[in-house]
Amino acid sequence: MRYLMKFSYNGSKYNGYQIQNDTITVQGVLEELLSKLFDEKIRISASGRTDALVHAYDQCAHFDSSKNFCLEKLKYALNSMLDYIYIKEIKLVDNNFHARYDVYSKEYVYKINVGEYNPLEKDYVFQLNKELDLDLMKQAIKLFEGEHDFTSFTSLDFEKDCTRVIYKTYINVKDNLVEIGFVGNGFLKYMVRNMVGLLIEIGLGKRYVSSVTEIIEYKDRKKAGICANPEGLYLKQVNYK
Amino acid sequence: MRYLMKFSYNGSKYNGYQIQNDTITVQGVLEELLSKLFDEKIRISASGRTDALVHAYDQCAHFDSSKNFCLEKLKYALNSMLDYIYIKEIKLVDNNFHARYDVYSKEYVYKINVGEYNPLEKDYVFQLNKELDLDLMKQAIKLFEGEHDFTSFTSLDFEKDCTRVIYKTYINVKDNLVEIGFVGNGFLKYMVRNMVGLLIEIGLGKRYVSSVTEIIEYKDRKKAGICANPEGLYLKQVNYK
Repeated sequence: MRYLMKFSYNGSKYNGYQIQNDTITVQGVLEELLSKLFDEKIRISASGRTDALVHAYDQCAHFDSSKNFCLEKLKYALNSMLDYIYIKEIKLVDNNFHARYDVYSKEYVYKINVGEYNPLEKDYVFQLNKELDLDLMKQAIKLFEGEHDFTSFTSLDFEKDCTRVIYKTYINVKDNLVEIGFVGNGFLKYMVRNMVGLLIEIGLGKRYVSSVTEIIEYKDRKKAGICANPEGLYLKQVNYK
Repeated sequence: MRYLMKFSYNGSKYNGYQIQNDTITVQGVLEELLSKLFDEKIRISASGRTDALVHAYDQCAHFDSSKNFCLEKLKYALNSMLDYIYIKEIKLVDNNFHARYDVYSKEYVYKINVGEYNPLEKDYVFQLNKELDLDLMKQAIKLFEGEHDFTSFTSLDFEKDCTRVIYKTYINVKDNLVEIGFVGNGFLKYMVRNMVGLLIEIGLGKRYVSSVTEIIEYKDRKKAGICANPEGLYLKQVNYK
């Protein structure tokens, strides 16, 4: 049987999504708990990883077991033992379903506070004590839409095909909170944070709007500039075919 | 010279406001930092304490020093070394001013999430997975207004005069967030959390609205019932004469 879980987590409490020895990770906590409940070794496959300190509203992961657990009880049992991860839904899926390969689109949102610093939100927004030119940023973000080779926006050691499609982008502003969103068929390591970093530089007047297209065309990570802090980033949604 | 600081803090990161040995507290962190900056032992006097895990939007505290620090530089220096405390304002006040004795009113707000659990807000709201009858709670909270002996709503070992005046109360609801507010001339230890605990019991149908007046009249802590969790509580404002 293949189970699919939809869950949210507070990234500030884990050393990233991916399992690692000797440190608390989202995957590590979930696999340990599921292995205990199912009384067998359970490995989970998520839609993708998130970096340390990055949050998720709607991460998805599947796992296999020969055991048939009551789904409601399983959800309840997991949530009663979790603090900073919340299982929103568990269902059975077809054995061919894959939480990573079957992703149709993912949405990430990045939150920037341009108002007074709030120590209650330190781990949940990127604090920027400068003014942003949002009109320039709104022009610039549109240039990311479509199919591009995002080599310039991933980590240096990434070697595979870096072509991705961005279906939709947006910048919403509510009081002092700026939300920068991307919907795409997939995102490379650090890609959202690097795109946001460039948009911030454009909003601060340090780069031209046209630098988005130029940097995409360079296909060279060294051209891109700053990588925005992880605490402002949220995996907002994963959509399947 | 007497300095007055207005500051906010994330209570989830400190073991309460009041200084203690061998544990991180808001007062302890601030006194250590100020003593370093002023190069002399600085003790601060706040408007009052907050319990472990309780947050503050606008705490106030004064301290004395013979040294004349540039206020802007002092604020900047403190904030550059603080993470989960934020100094909003520092000013000089009259030597007769006292951050505790000169309080005219304080406002506390208590936040309850009655919607789906959100692991990102775990440390910032009280999670209640039950429905509340808000009409009953709105009737009940009005009975706290005015001058009363709040012996029933403080800790058992509290012996001094427990008479306090509550000027104003409110319950605001926005989506799944219920905010319960109290403005008064002072609040005893655990008083807000005990009042909120009783209101929750009334909202759940476990007590009658009239129990507010009855319990006030008992002047007996054992009658009051549950003490609401600390993480939902915020010191919102301190007003001086």
